[in-house]
Amino acid sequence: MSLVVQKYGGSSVADAPAIRRVARRIVAYRDAGQEVVVVVSAMGDTTDELIDLAAQVSPSPPGRELDMLLTAGERISMALLAMAITDSGHEARSFTGSQAGMITDASHGRARIIDVTPGRIRDALDAGAVAIVAGFQGVSQTTKDITTLGRGGSDTTAVALAAALGADVCEIYTDVDGVFTADPRVVPLAHRIAQISHEEMLEMAASGAKVLHLRAVEYARRYNVSLHVRSSFSDRLGTLIAQGGAVFPIGPGEFRTSTSEEEPMEQPLIAGVAHDSSQGKITLIGVPDVPGKAAAVFKIVAQTDANIDMIVQNVSTEITGRTDISFTLPTDDAPRVRHAIESARDELGYLSLEYSDRIGKLSLIGAGMRSHPGVSAGLFAALSDAGVNIEMISTSEIRLSVVTEREDLERAVRAAHTAFGLDSAEGEAVVYGGTGR
Amino acid sequence: MSLVVQKYGGSSVADAPAIRRVARRIVAYRDAGQEVVVVVSAMGDTTDELIDLAAQVSPSPPGRELDMLLTAGERISMALLAMAITDSGHEARSFTGSQAGMITDASHGRARIIDVTPGRIRDALDAGAVAIVAGFQGVSQTTKDITTLGRGGSDTTAVALAAALGADVCEIYTDVDGVFTADPRVVPLAHRIAQISHEEMLEMAASGAKVLHLRAVEYARRYNVSLHVRSSFSDRLGTLIAQGGAVFPIGPGEFRTSTSEEEPMEQPLIAGVAHDSSQGKITLIGVPDVPGKAAAVFKIVAQTDANIDMIVQNVSTEITGRTDISFTLPTDDAPRVRHAIESARDELGYLSLEYSDRIGKLSLIGAGMRSHPGVSAGLFAALSDAGVNIEMISTSEIRLSVVTEREDLERAVRAAHTAFGLDSAEGEAVVYGGTGR
Repeated sequence: MSLVVQKYGGSSVADAPAIRRVARRIVAYRDAGQEVVVVVSAMGDTTDELIDLAAQVSPSPPGRELDMLLTAGERISMALLAMAITDSGHEARSFTGSQAGMITDASHGRARIIDVTPGRIRDALDAGAVAIVAGFQGVSQTTKDITTLGRGGSDTTAVALAAALGADVCEIYTDVDGVFTADPRVVPLAHRIAQISHEEMLEMAASGAKVLHLRAVEYARRYNVSLHVRSSFSDRLGTLIAQGGAVFPIGPGEFRTSTSEEEPMEQPLIAGVAHDSSQGKITLIGVPDVPGKAAAVFKIVAQTDANIDMIVQNVSTEITGRTDISFTLPTDDAPRVRHAIESARDELGYLSLEYSDRIGKLSLIGAGMRSHPGVSAGLFAALSDAGVNIEMISTSEIRLSVVTEREDLERAVRAAHTAFGLDSAEGEAVVYGGTGR
Repeated sequence: MSLVVQKYGGSSVADAPAIRRVARRIVAYRDAGQEVVVVVSAMGDTTDELIDLAAQVSPSPPGRELDMLLTAGERISMALLAMAITDSGHEARSFTGSQAGMITDASHGRARIIDVTPGRIRDALDAGAVAIVAGFQGVSQTTKDITTLGRGGSDTTAVALAAALGADVCEIYTDVDGVFTADPRVVPLAHRIAQISHEEMLEMAASGAKVLHLRAVEYARRYNVSLHVRSSFSDRLGTLIAQGGAVFPIGPGEFRTSTSEEEPMEQPLIAGVAHDSSQGKITLIGVPDVPGKAAAVFKIVAQTDANIDMIVQNVSTEITGRTDISFTLPTDDAPRVRHAIESARDELGYLSLEYSDRIGKLSLIGAGMRSHPGVSAGLFAALSDAGVNIEMISTSEIRLSVVTEREDLERAVRAAHTAFGLDSAEGEAVVYGGTGR
């Protein structure tokens, strides 16, 4: 018997008709003899409404109580979904994160999963029931308090349960058709990616693609969980994120084998183009070019708990004995990082600090880069032709990122999408010879 | 150090300003050095809204899931209240029914409390925090599923916690000033009762007084918990429900000793007049007057799980060898009881069944009845003067109830209230020499 974990986001369970539609989909899987575990988010805007309520009673609510408050949202959606499934003639039982065995640390609002002990979920499945689990929430191992996993938490709940239960696939239902070669709002000719590797998806998510949360992809890669990102508003296939040769359900009674990377089919160089306009850039001008200075800068930055992304250090000019250091970071983190650096100005000895929040980052992602050295040259030529200036560059084995002026970013994304042959009139990308229908 | 359990109903925490007002009251107690445990209901109409949502996805939602759904309501109000208290500078921690140790049986929607193990509440108090507990909910001892206690559940949660923690008083905050000598909407000259015994309050609640739920009063009597029913919209004293000589807090740093029943102060004959217009009356005409027939009738009724209240069996006429049996019951229970009796007509051998939902019940309650035999005569005279016909009569040691036509009920209540000297221009009742301010 195959086991499917399905995750439905807030827009998929926004109201009673949506919940009944989701129930019908689940029941179809059950009718085909498949075991189903469902992870749900809170209905529609419930979480935002609860945050508004909290703000009305306290400007800085304690994390423990905010978690207690917010977890009410999934409690409502999961109970309603269980009712709708029961009404369709199948047994269903809902479980809180705590009941489902999502054991976390005690970091309220951004708890990390320590262990998953889904004994009650397994019991429900063995009794023939659909198990509905509240996404986004867990219980602290030490304090026994209710915790939440933070943004992207429901995706992570689903992947963690799929790993712990040995599910055949973890389906992530959302309001788009899957992962696209670029953001369709920026690139009208972008199209759905049929299949992509965990590594590529990880780079996509880290580079600004929003359909799947980075953390959930990391978890899926570590435990080799096959993911299927698809729309809850249609029966079409979405994007498979899997190792080659995996067999998994794609619908009630329907199965597919994922394509292997080694198969001799046309494989594009680039899987997709991601972009991120949420970062800013700090430049320290005139840092003394002596050993340990850069380390001192980033030690201070690390103490602020900010997420530093790209770092560039200019070649020192021999005359001055000084160099410039630039790095990018989320604009939300910028004020406290600037404050920390400016407070340590005497220790660091730099001449001035510049900050820009008008930058954008473009990333090409593709496992094909491993064997094709010409990607950077191709990107630089395409951007040059489009009149886009490049400010910073960074690379990984399967990713190439550049920083541009923010006003050039969307033009740069379209130019790169075209230059690497991703534009499609058919609305279908074939990555690893994907087999979308 | 004194320990106060406070219960706030939905209207007391209906919105953010109301929650902040409740927080200020709690903080005042804490500032006076008192330990406070707070039991909250769901905000305003939340529970009804959740029931509406359930009805939209399923005409007959399973009890387990309905309980899971409804318990989200208290989760929201208790977390918000904890935030508001924290914002006022005192530590507060919220706890679900399960976390607070409210152990119940597995009867969803009407669970009975089996045990109360408030270890985490005691720990929170010992750490100097206010403990906020979700009313109305518990966890099943056998299935570990979330349960709800049914109507009046939050009052029962508060009383059960007060008993388990050995609290000095359990304050029930509501939107009225306390328990009145009669429903002020019916009797304009009704006034607040300053103090009343558990036994009298039990009879009041059982006879239709709605301010306190019968079940909570039963629990309080069994464990001798002193109750204080009062308004969350003022600082005035409400109604004390206590044994004589109990010492308990009545406000921040303020204490009072309850008056003893034996004290030589003016003690009224009657504490209050309750009425109930939610009952109907079934009459079986021509039941064979042979041993065991009445037992057979009520065995069949008992199998329907209906709450039978008053029973009257007429004297049999020797000529026919038949008698009439009448009993009252909640109108909600009437259809299934009628169905059960009519299905057993051959076995029971009665001639016909009559049903009326146009009855009303008036009850006089007062411990003074024990030593004053003239109460029934006084009531009958008053009702006769008011032109009210009496259909049925039943008594307990401290209660006298009569059934009237429903259209006569309010007139009967006013007449009884006047006849027993309860009308007051001062808005204050002195029962047991009560000491209201």
